[in-house]
Amino acid sequence: MSFELISAHGCFGGEQRFYKHDSREIGLPMRFGLYLPPQAAQGPVPVLTYLAGLTCNEETFAIKAGAQRFAAQHGIALLMPDTSPRGANAPGEADAWDFGVAAGFYLDATQAPWAKHWRMESYLMAELLPEAAAAFGLDAQRAGLFGHSMGGHGALTLALRHPGRFRSVSAFAPIAAPTRCPWGHKAFSGYLGDDRSTWEAHDASALMAQQKQALFPQGILVDQGLADKFLAEQLHPEAFEAACQAVGQPLTLRRHAGYDHGYYFITSFIADHLAHHAAALNAGR
Amino acid sequence: MSFELISAHGCFGGEQRFYKHDSREIGLPMRFGLYLPPQAAQGPVPVLTYLAGLTCNEETFAIKAGAQRFAAQHGIALLMPDTSPRGANAPGEADAWDFGVAAGFYLDATQAPWAKHWRMESYLMAELLPEAAAAFGLDAQRAGLFGHSMGGHGALTLALRHPGRFRSVSAFAPIAAPTRCPWGHKAFSGYLGDDRSTWEAHDASALMAQQKQALFPQGILVDQGLADKFLAEQLHPEAFEAACQAVGQPLTLRRHAGYDHGYYFITSFIADHLAHHAAALNAGR
Repeated sequence: MSFELISAHGCFGGEQRFYKHDSREIGLPMRFGLYLPPQAAQGPVPVLTYLAGLTCNEETFAIKAGAQRFAAQHGIALLMPDTSPRGANAPGEADAWDFGVAAGFYLDATQAPWAKHWRMESYLMAELLPEAAAAFGLDAQRAGLFGHSMGGHGALTLALRHPGRFRSVSAFAPIAAPTRCPWGHKAFSGYLGDDRSTWEAHDASALMAQQKQALFPQGILVDQGLADKFLAEQLHPEAFEAACQAVGQPLTLRRHAGYDHGYYFITSFIADHLAHHAAALNAGR
Repeated sequence: MSFELISAHGCFGGEQRFYKHDSREIGLPMRFGLYLPPQAAQGPVPVLTYLAGLTCNEETFAIKAGAQRFAAQHGIALLMPDTSPRGANAPGEADAWDFGVAAGFYLDATQAPWAKHWRMESYLMAELLPEAAAAFGLDAQRAGLFGHSMGGHGALTLALRHPGRFRSVSAFAPIAAPTRCPWGHKAFSGYLGDDRSTWEAHDASALMAQQKQALFPQGILVDQGLADKFLAEQLHPEAFEAACQAVGQPLTLRRHAGYDHGYYFITSFIADHLAHHAAALNAGR
């Protein structure tokens, strides 16, 4: 695979880069962001992948979250994929902001016309993460995953669906029980079809409830704003909390008065998430 | 004056707000950003105004710079004006990205058709700064000013043109000698006319050279990236440096290898700028 460098910007002693590549799994060109901390010049560094939310792209987190400051402090690379295929020209792909373009939900669609290109799970797990790690000298054995909203759903579900691939996971305002909310119903019926038995495999709370033991014994971190207008209808952190409790999975779920669903919330708590991942990814170094 | 709240977002224990108001000096509606740190709930806090660069608006710095983290730490409010009038429909106002809309250069135009609305200096100094301070309980006696590129030009020139109004000043990659560069020639000939004798009053290096003594004895901070593609032709920090040296104005001009003109550069050094201003604005508290 060849990665084409679009731009590179000095940032906290390292580099914020943006790349483009022809994705085998997606079947279209894809873009992503990569922050390399200054420590990357001395050898492999851990890689923390951030999955963004609805309407976002590979630049959103890089521009808005202020995470590079702490990635540089901890010596961790940040990998920032896009949120869906682009340029597929699938019928209706841009009709809604919560389905289609910029709304891939980090799964492989099984339904026409989405199944052809909407393969975000395979794209991330079988292509981008391993091949970017190899190309940029990242330590794929020390990998963490986090995300926001739809990307929080992606982080929690992919971490549970691929045991051993990630040492740490966290989320901001995740869609924590998509089988119980309108965003999830719309996405899953469109991408996976009307047979709801296929949905639970992509629902973080359902996946957690199926665990035999805690996959992340050092704990999962979730932050949630209480002024988040999507909280009551779409997010359901209490479902994930209950599932973690039943399984014995340590969870730190922090509810913050006065914070909404946006990046002013994320940047306010980003330092804690980087520290959470650094504790796992830099352990034993 | 009445300020209409557009939005408010919890951010580092304070609030990032955006307002709209009918500006008397501009003669049109204007928008601005205001970050109130948590300390603002206990009484007046200092106010640090940031002037943005070409193509930017009142949201750019709030979204990209990560300054709120340090404003909250130091207990300083951030005031973020827009970069020009909008909606004037002046002929040609949107024909170029470096003149007209989003390119007000923080001065009062004297030439038609710009003189009617392009009054950014009077807008800031006689209207927004005093009236926002009064409306939001900010301590106008403890005011600082900084900015980037065109806004760095604005910060340095307004601080020198209005002695006593600001206790501290700094800049990122300022247009430090606009009478000597294409951006300045275009802006000044358009807004001020062809009589170049009027231009020097809006050129930071020329203004500095005219000082009898150091207006900012505690020093001015300027950061400049050496991978900045505008450095050689447009910025001329060496002219400002020479003028400061001649006058005895302490200047910390830091040249950073590998950093470009954008916000990944700004965010990398924003903490130092907030600390620079906090030292002056919180002195004697």
